[in-house]
Amino acid sequence: MGKGIKIVTIGGGSSYTPELIEGFIKRKDEIPIREIWLVDIEEGKEKLEVVGDLAKRMVKDAGLDWKVYLTLDRQEALKDADFVTTQFRVGMLDARIKDERIPLSYGILGQETNGAGGMFKAFRTIPVVLEIIEEMKELCPDAWLINFANPSGMITEAVLRYGSFDKVVGLCNVPIIHMMRESELLGKRPEDLIFLFGGLNHFHWHKVYDKKGNEITEDIMDLMFKENKQVVENIRNIPFLEEQIRHLGMLPCTYHRFYYLQDDMLKNAIESYQKGETRAEVVKDVERELFELYKDSDLKEKPEQLSKRGGAHYSDAACETISSIYNDKQNIMVVSTRNNGALPDLPDDVAVEVSSVMTAAGPKPIAFGKLNAAARGYLQLMKAMEELTIEAAVTGDYGAALQAFTINPLVPAGNIAKKLLDEMLIAHKDYLPQFKDSIEKIEKEKNS
Amino acid sequence: MGKGIKIVTIGGGSSYTPELIEGFIKRKDEIPIREIWLVDIEEGKEKLEVVGDLAKRMVKDAGLDWKVYLTLDRQEALKDADFVTTQFRVGMLDARIKDERIPLSYGILGQETNGAGGMFKAFRTIPVVLEIIEEMKELCPDAWLINFANPSGMITEAVLRYGSFDKVVGLCNVPIIHMMRESELLGKRPEDLIFLFGGLNHFHWHKVYDKKGNEITEDIMDLMFKENKQVVENIRNIPFLEEQIRHLGMLPCTYHRFYYLQDDMLKNAIESYQKGETRAEVVKDVERELFELYKDSDLKEKPEQLSKRGGAHYSDAACETISSIYNDKQNIMVVSTRNNGALPDLPDDVAVEVSSVMTAAGPKPIAFGKLNAAARGYLQLMKAMEELTIEAAVTGDYGAALQAFTINPLVPAGNIAKKLLDEMLIAHKDYLPQFKDSIEKIEKEKNS
Amino acid sequence: MGKGIKIVTIGGGSSYTPELIEGFIKRKDEIPIREIWLVDIEEGKEKLEVVGDLAKRMVKDAGLDWKVYLTLDRQEALKDADFVTTQFRVGMLDARIKDERIPLSYGILGQETNGAGGMFKAFRTIPVVLEIIEEMKELCPDAWLINFANPSGMITEAVLRYGSFDKVVGLCNVPIIHMMRESELLGKRPEDLIFLFGGLNHFHWHKVYDKKGNEITEDIMDLMFKENKQVVENIRNIPFLEEQIRHLGMLPCTYHRFYYLQDDMLKNAIESYQKGETRAEVVKDVERELFELYKDSDLKEKPEQLSKRGGAHYSDAACETISSIYNDKQNIMVVSTRNNGALPDLPDDVAVEVSSVMTAAGPKPIAFGKLNAAARGYLQLMKAMEELTIEAAVTGDYGAALQAFTINPLVPAGNIAKKLLDEMLIAHKDYLPQFKDSIEKIEKEKNS
Amino acid sequence: MGKGIKIVTIGGGSSYTPELIEGFIKRKDEIPIREIWLVDIEEGKEKLEVVGDLAKRMVKDAGLDWKVYLTLDRQEALKDADFVTTQFRVGMLDARIKDERIPLSYGILGQETNGAGGMFKAFRTIPVVLEIIEEMKELCPDAWLINFANPSGMITEAVLRYGSFDKVVGLCNVPIIHMMRESELLGKRPEDLIFLFGGLNHFHWHKVYDKKGNEITEDIMDLMFKENKQVVENIRNIPFLEEQIRHLGMLPCTYHRFYYLQDDMLKNAIESYQKGETRAEVVKDVERELFELYKDSDLKEKPEQLSKRGGAHYSDAACETISSIYNDKQNIMVVSTRNNGALPDLPDDVAVEVSSVMTAAGPKPIAFGKLNAAARGYLQLMKAMEELTIEAAVTGDYGAALQAFTINPLVPAGNIAKKLLDEMLIAHKDYLPQFKDSIEKIEKEKNS
Repeated sequence: MGKGIKIVTIGGGSSYTPELIEGFIKRKDEIPIREIWLVDIEEGKEKLEVVGDLAKRMVKDAGLDWKVYLTLDRQEALKDADFVTTQFRVGMLDARIKDERIPLSYGILGQETNGAGGMFKAFRTIPVVLEIIEEMKELCPDAWLINFANPSGMITEAVLRYGSFDKVVGLCNVPIIHMMRESELLGKRPEDLIFLFGGLNHFHWHKVYDKKGNEITEDIMDLMFKENKQVVENIRNIPFLEEQIRHLGMLPCTYHRFYYLQDDMLKNAIESYQKGETRAEVVKDVERELFELYKDSDLKEKPEQLSKRGGAHYSDAACETISSIYNDKQNIMVVSTRNNGALPDLPDDVAVEVSSVMTAAGPKPIAFGKLNAAARGYLQLMKAMEELTIEAAVTGDYGAALQAFTINPLVPAGNIAKKLLDEMLIAHKDYLPQFKDSIEKIEKEKNS
Repeated sequence: MGKGIKIVTIGGGSSYTPELIEGFIKRKDEIPIREIWLVDIEEGKEKLEVVGDLAKRMVKDAGLDWKVYLTLDRQEALKDADFVTTQFRVGMLDARIKDERIPLSYGILGQETNGAGGMFKAFRTIPVVLEIIEEMKELCPDAWLINFANPSGMITEAVLRYGSFDKVVGLCNVPIIHMMRESELLGKRPEDLIFLFGGLNHFHWHKVYDKKGNEITEDIMDLMFKENKQVVENIRNIPFLEEQIRHLGMLPCTYHRFYYLQDDMLKNAIESYQKGETRAEVVKDVERELFELYKDSDLKEKPEQLSKRGGAHYSDAACETISSIYNDKQNIMVVSTRNNGALPDLPDDVAVEVSSVMTAAGPKPIAFGKLNAAARGYLQLMKAMEELTIEAAVTGDYGAALQAFTINPLVPAGNIAKKLLDEMLIAHKDYLPQFKDSIEKIEKEKNS
Repeated sequence: MGKGIKIVTIGGGSSYTPELIEGFIKRKDEIPIREIWLVDIEEGKEKLEVVGDLAKRMVKDAGLDWKVYLTLDRQEALKDADFVTTQFRVGMLDARIKDERIPLSYGILGQETNGAGGMFKAFRTIPVVLEIIEEMKELCPDAWLINFANPSGMITEAVLRYGSFDKVVGLCNVPIIHMMRESELLGKRPEDLIFLFGGLNHFHWHKVYDKKGNEITEDIMDLMFKENKQVVENIRNIPFLEEQIRHLGMLPCTYHRFYYLQDDMLKNAIESYQKGETRAEVVKDVERELFELYKDSDLKEKPEQLSKRGGAHYSDAACETISSIYNDKQNIMVVSTRNNGALPDLPDDVAVEVSSVMTAAGPKPIAFGKLNAAARGYLQLMKAMEELTIEAAVTGDYGAALQAFTINPLVPAGNIAKKLLDEMLIAHKDYLPQFKDSIEKIEKEKNS
Repeated sequence: MGKGIKIVTIGGGSSYTPELIEGFIKRKDEIPIREIWLVDIEEGKEKLEVVGDLAKRMVKDAGLDWKVYLTLDRQEALKDADFVTTQFRVGMLDARIKDERIPLSYGILGQETNGAGGMFKAFRTIPVVLEIIEEMKELCPDAWLINFANPSGMITEAVLRYGSFDKVVGLCNVPIIHMMRESELLGKRPEDLIFLFGGLNHFHWHKVYDKKGNEITEDIMDLMFKENKQVVENIRNIPFLEEQIRHLGMLPCTYHRFYYLQDDMLKNAIESYQKGETRAEVVKDVERELFELYKDSDLKEKPEQLSKRGGAHYSDAACETISSIYNDKQNIMVVSTRNNGALPDLPDDVAVEVSSVMTAAGPKPIAFGKLNAAARGYLQLMKAMEELTIEAAVTGDYGAALQAFTINPLVPAGNIAKKLLDEMLIAHKDYLPQFKDSIEKIEKEKNS
């Protein structure tokens, strides 16, 4: 790393890239960047150019001499990289629209991380990530992979267990958003509180302490339930059920609504579906607008509108992770990493998303301890669902995929699950080479 | 036990009692019975007399000198008992009808063992069983409790963990039915095969071997899927999904249909509901007919029609358990007992339903070993749901009850679950003293 | 197995063979034997002939038409075998004498199963057993390996984990001896009691129940300590310490003396060593006498003197295991088999010696449950020592061997352990090809 | 804590107190101290006055207005304390001399933390600490107990499990000494390296990384073995065995010599014993000198000679812990705390000594992960030995004490262990009220 850091961003044409660049600029004194490589694929070439030009203008405007490269040649980019970030979306937003709309056409939540949609995102993304890992082993074996493609936890686990590659960190913006919002509710800054998170990506709980060491988790519940404050507004505002959360003894994350309030969330989602306003469709419109803005050659900073995109703080988390590892900051971040006992109710070698100390040797998870039955059982189910999804993504085993659908609490089990699975396999077939045989069989049966 | 065995049957007025008596008569050379006490409550007095008289006729007809006592005084009966069997139904069949119909009125499966219905059965039954345990500690501390009241696994766990009483065995007829039916499909007798079961009551899997030691689990799957044989017909005939069961690598039990084919089973149940033909209602009619038959003073044996009742083999399993313990048979039976590592994916001190060696010192579970992710995760969720249900049954904690509803895969989570819980609490309030405060609060809110 | 069973005994020239033959003759109606193959190596040819001739006379005298073959060609023997028993001793009794005398020359217990001697026996034996397993996979893949070569538990684990061969049972005579002796002390027959064993080979504990289900473990302790009865006399008669055993709450096995009374046993062993009367030397004399007897062509049954040899009941256990598997007896025996949760304090995939139900599909261990701290910690240490010993036996890794010596409670850690290890490696070098490089290095250093 | 912090030091008359005071002075800008209470017992009154006067001079000389109180009234001192540190020695150095010399008179290592000596220190100290905890619950329930009395890990566990008090941290200077010495060997500062520790007090291993995230554990082994550098010289300089440490893959701590080089250490200790130069005796001389120095009213700082005392950095660790908690530093320290999964090979609720993030809510252990067999088995044995020792200390159960002696690898099992136990019980009887009955029985038997 002698002469500065080489950073490679796969999926560089993403609308998020300006936030990432901003994050690096903000940390220019912490991370001695030499080169940033934005990599994309043929289909994303135009977007790459638009956002790449903006990135160059931002760097220049900040008075920095970093080289910004745009390329479709992933291997060239990976050569001698120090940090690789992944933010690509296989099949682009149209695939996400399918992920959400097809399930809803069956009256089932698509949910782009842990539901049927997220599982298909895993099926499309994991094989590509494992390809990247093989290239990294060859071209930059000491580099860290900082993943924020979703489903971030499953991708991290695939890299650890099937890629046999340890230098990986999975990121998500949900913990940061909780920390910011809950501090605000209490009239404090995040740094005035201690947050301990434990669980899986988009399925974690947390406890909060003040600087005197007193647990104030219940105080936040009081705000939620007595003063009716919504902790996180990203997702539709349906309040949690007080008695259940009180019994839990920990704060849920915003994605827990999909589980703890499944019926209510589903009704809501069906309405959006009927209006053609699923999250994926909304995001597609926002993206279109964003790229119009990005084209403006006078624009030299991240535009305000990006925050509407929904992924705020993601890229910032990536930059902070890179800085933490590079500088051995030993600060606490919430990341997806190998369990190692941090959640003793789960196997040791799976990925979990927990508060971790960020060192030069990577994230070191803080032992969160055993959970009570209510959290434990659900966590164990979700991890098993993730394991099966990853297995199916890697092997293309149809039985594993159907099994994952069967036990996923967001998918009703039975013949409806099978029909949904089959329809989604066909809809995404261009991006699912591992399922080729199964897809052919489904198509044949359908046509007969 | 010097001068013969004293057996006490709580819920003696049940329509099952003739099968139980038949079971004892069949084993007259194995179990030296002195007295059988049939105990019931005031509301069941009439049935107790009808079925008790039949029992007396059966014993007499068999040429046995056993004393058969009918009583409403449970403590008198328990004094110096050797074996106590429990087959009572708190709230009788009308409560079961509510257990099934109220959920279905919300479009939710009631399911009398692990669904909302089963959870309410646990709420009603566990406090009474714990009362019986306290009396047993006083009046017959060395007796064994042989429970076949449902939900049998949860009741066993409540006795072990909250009653701190070890001499308890939980029974179910599902394993026997599987063994009989699968043997028949293969053209064999059950004793020609080796069955290994592991899981929870109404939620277990099994593997099968022939007498040469070859595993033939896949052969049974071939019969199920290639020749379309239904393994167990007790519950509506919806075939399992082949790819999922093949991936599982073990045979599911018939109750797994409620989970693995939830959507299909629900549609079916809603039809029955609309026709007023839920299982509970059907059973009520069958029972009425049975008691008419029982009244016939010429009847001196278990009538053929009892087999339609659905609980076949239950009582026989109870008699066999008593004989196995009394005679230290060291035969293998499938019972609910303390885990002790038999399923290493679950805590040690919970109840599991596994193949066990039946000794004079009680059932000794056979180590079943770790499960693959698909079975493991679901099993862990179901056990957590059971733990929360038992907690709620014992403490009357509304939060625990709502938590159990929330994580139960048969109940959609959210406000609908809360509404269902509240309506069922009110419907069963006469049998739920532990929830008195919560019920009053619900009624007050409703009326305001 | 249509036309009768083929049994192969590797180490057929052993002095134990007559007991084995007697065991088969006793079970002639249970096991339809066609052929018995006694296999040995060149060095054992003479003994093979002597004992083989006796075997033939015994079979003939019993009026049986079994073919008894004597051969040095192991592969010919293994072809289409149904059961393979292993009772060979690599390096013969002279190796055992070294196993015992070399450690004692350092003032250290040799102890032929779990001490330095037993570890070297594992080093010599495991590679040969794994060779046999490879041949079995080729020549008789459905056969069962019934091992009673020592250290029986470690060999079983090596077959399961390194040989990846599941059809293996490890035997030992210690549990049988305990059951016989303790029953006798109580004035009962073994079949009138229930014994539950849990632990490792030569390192297990047990609990005892009567046929009414009452635990009588404490009653046996009363006999041991109040009436000063020695439970097992095989090994020198030094009584256990009462307070420690009472605190333990389970009965130790006779080999626990080496651990619980280490200092006393050591003093005793040093005396024997000084007199040239180590167990190995005594056995060598007994063996010499036995073979003299065996040569007598009038001898047509197992001679009385064999019982002095010390391994009584071993061969009988082997015959009973074969009969139990062949006939799916579902009786309880104490064998070494894969843990699978039976002892939840140990990993799932290691070998343990526990009460198991003997089925056609092999032994199914009974869940013994968690142990208290006193048994748990020591058991975990011993298992780790075994794992390291097996690793060293398979890989020839000197560090693993030294590590195993270091943590073994019978070997004082430090430079003395290293010296002992080195001397034993050289003494046994003919039988330790896997340690060739290390041995050369040691010899070079010694000579320099 | 509004008006400043109140610190209470039990065992305030200890020779370590000047280091503690120095530690506080060094952190005067971090910890707003109001009062320091030095508490001791009648027998320690003189020492308390000498060292208390020095403490007052030190504070005054530093220009601070902290109040320093000397008292024999522990309850008065504890009232409203913020932090309580414990550094007392029940029975004073004479007891330690017995702890070391009595075992050595049997040819057994006394070893003042985990050997027979350390176990007796636990027997004497734990009841007093639990008394203090009861007073703290009454007088200062929100205070933290910072324990550095030995055996520090066992005392921490006793407080957590038997005292049911969570606000406790156990300290030791061994990790700090390793970090300092190993950094020095590498020509670095401790802050240039990342150390991860896992294990028990005086029985832990560690791994080391550089700031680029590369593991350099092997580099330190190279220094140890190739360049013959002694990592820690506190204890006699006997080098570890290279092959064993290489196989281990982690660095041992200096106290591991007592286990990994037991025979060598024992020989050494016997020499010292014969010369009357056990560590306890050496320390007693050093202490005498130190108190002479302390009496000098011109002395206003910690004298150089204290570093010879052996406990360097202990008090500094205590001050740093207090500052870390008070200021929520979130720095990494190695402390004894509740496991919670950090070492998944051990139960969750025991005390372990691991790298932990120090927060206002106490230490949060970093998940260290599973260990290989060599470390795992020994760790599990040592933890069991600790659990039994704590049980004996709390209950006075003689069987538990004998059990702990039996499984402790530093004590040869058998009648010698019992004799040693009995002699030590009598020697320390004034400080062992919980063993009163057993001691009387021993004395009676001896005299008869």
